[in-house]
Amino acid sequence: MGRVTVRRPVLRLSENGVRRRQDALAAEEPLELRVGGKALAVTMRTPGHDVELAHGFLLTEGVIGAAADVSTARYCDSLDDQGRNTYNVLDLALAPGMEPPDTSVERNFYTTSSCGVCGKAALDAVKLKTRFSPEADACRVSPETLATFPDLLREQQKVFESTGGLHAAGIFTADGELLVVREDVGRHNAVDKATGWALLDGRVPLAGSVLMVSGRASFELVQKAAMAGIPVLAAVSAPSSLAVELADEQGITLIGFLRGTSMNVYTHADRITG
Amino acid sequence: MGRVTVRRPVLRLSENGVRRRQDALAAEEPLELRVGGKALAVTMRTPGHDVELAHGFLLTEGVIGAAADVSTARYCDSLDDQGRNTYNVLDLALAPGMEPPDTSVERNFYTTSSCGVCGKAALDAVKLKTRFSPEADACRVSPETLATFPDLLREQQKVFESTGGLHAAGIFTADGELLVVREDVGRHNAVDKATGWALLDGRVPLAGSVLMVSGRASFELVQKAAMAGIPVLAAVSAPSSLAVELADEQGITLIGFLRGTSMNVYTHADRITG
Repeated sequence: MGRVTVRRPVLRLSENGVRRRQDALAAEEPLELRVGGKALAVTMRTPGHDVELAHGFLLTEGVIGAAADVSTARYCDSLDDQGRNTYNVLDLALAPGMEPPDTSVERNFYTTSSCGVCGKAALDAVKLKTRFSPEADACRVSPETLATFPDLLREQQKVFESTGGLHAAGIFTADGELLVVREDVGRHNAVDKATGWALLDGRVPLAGSVLMVSGRASFELVQKAAMAGIPVLAAVSAPSSLAVELADEQGITLIGFLRGTSMNVYTHADRITG
Repeated sequence: MGRVTVRRPVLRLSENGVRRRQDALAAEEPLELRVGGKALAVTMRTPGHDVELAHGFLLTEGVIGAAADVSTARYCDSLDDQGRNTYNVLDLALAPGMEPPDTSVERNFYTTSSCGVCGKAALDAVKLKTRFSPEADACRVSPETLATFPDLLREQQKVFESTGGLHAAGIFTADGELLVVREDVGRHNAVDKATGWALLDGRVPLAGSVLMVSGRASFELVQKAAMAGIPVLAAVSAPSSLAVELADEQGITLIGFLRGTSMNVYTHADRITG
């Protein structure tokens, strides 16, 4: 795509005085996702790997569970004011017989009849959508293997290297093999691109794998791991309360503050060896 | 509210071996915002300062521009499975004559007739909504004053201190006085709580002020600054390409990588003295 970074002039102030220079910025542009011609969502993302992003997004939403559930993906003729395709509108056609997604305003409202809007309702909403259960996944991962992940992730963060401005998500095997790294200005997009890659590669559910993210672990990221059947989620920074609750309920091992050889294991520590 | 942190048991692995301890986590719960009884949005937020959050959210959406535009705000009777109010549904009534918000699915779609879905359409969408123009704001801020902001923000991050898991947003005067700091698991929520506080305190448009955020500067955060009439936005980390473009167009001074006495000024550097 060649649109992953954008160069801009910047005024740099430091102990060494003031100087003008060119700076590389992480690109951010809107992407409109459509299913069967109908608009479903707009996300601010870093261009590139859009088809993977769309698959990962629909996997999280519970719309699809395998690559075969999507028959075609194509950029629409969205033209800018100079008549060029923006490559910012992606339309997916579902395979025959697939249920179209709920495009109502209410689809993301965590309300159930048994309970008002609360953490439990949010957990229940995920439970209703999951196709794969990480619960029974008997994989084991050693602290020594986990300790290698942050550096392996960082080495692959090509765009972060030049901009300092991107989130990253990587999928590893429990043995420590790096399968994929994706970067994006949005943390959820980086994960969608990674799980979308796995879906297109026939690897979902991602049994025996570890999802590693460069930032914090929120409810939403644990939800994405659950929907992709990932048994272990590791984050460089802190998890939220609801992230821990959801990981606990979904049978996911949640690790936070993974830095060097130290880490906090919040749930299902039985998958950590030694 | 007493729900800002949650204690959970954690297994800590480090060079010193393995030990069990209690860990404080940043609380995350859904908040449903309603206007006139009609659901508008659900956001995952850290409970507390919800009324401010709602005001800041509606300010960003272009629904309100002053505290008087909202007549009442109250928690609905959203009951959990034990019959207790969840305090997770907040209903705002607009003042008589105010236009209700657009609750259609399309409201956040950055499409204009002159252009497809692209960065320019996103910039145009903000231009259509802004009430206040930071452009003409003649305030000046010195690099020495800016250099004090990260530490001042950090000192006020009470919850981050105990959890390591929260974003923060602070509003300062150009002279360096700290007006407010708010924290949240969501970066956009932290800013909404801060601008919402300012709105309720009769300080919007926030002429002559600086918004400081603990993380990166995205399109969305620059949009929030623009809608609140804030002329200077400073971030600890990198801005995205579209954040810089929007700041440029809206007349906002955008500063990134503000660390110690060094910083990058991306737009409208004329407000930086010396």
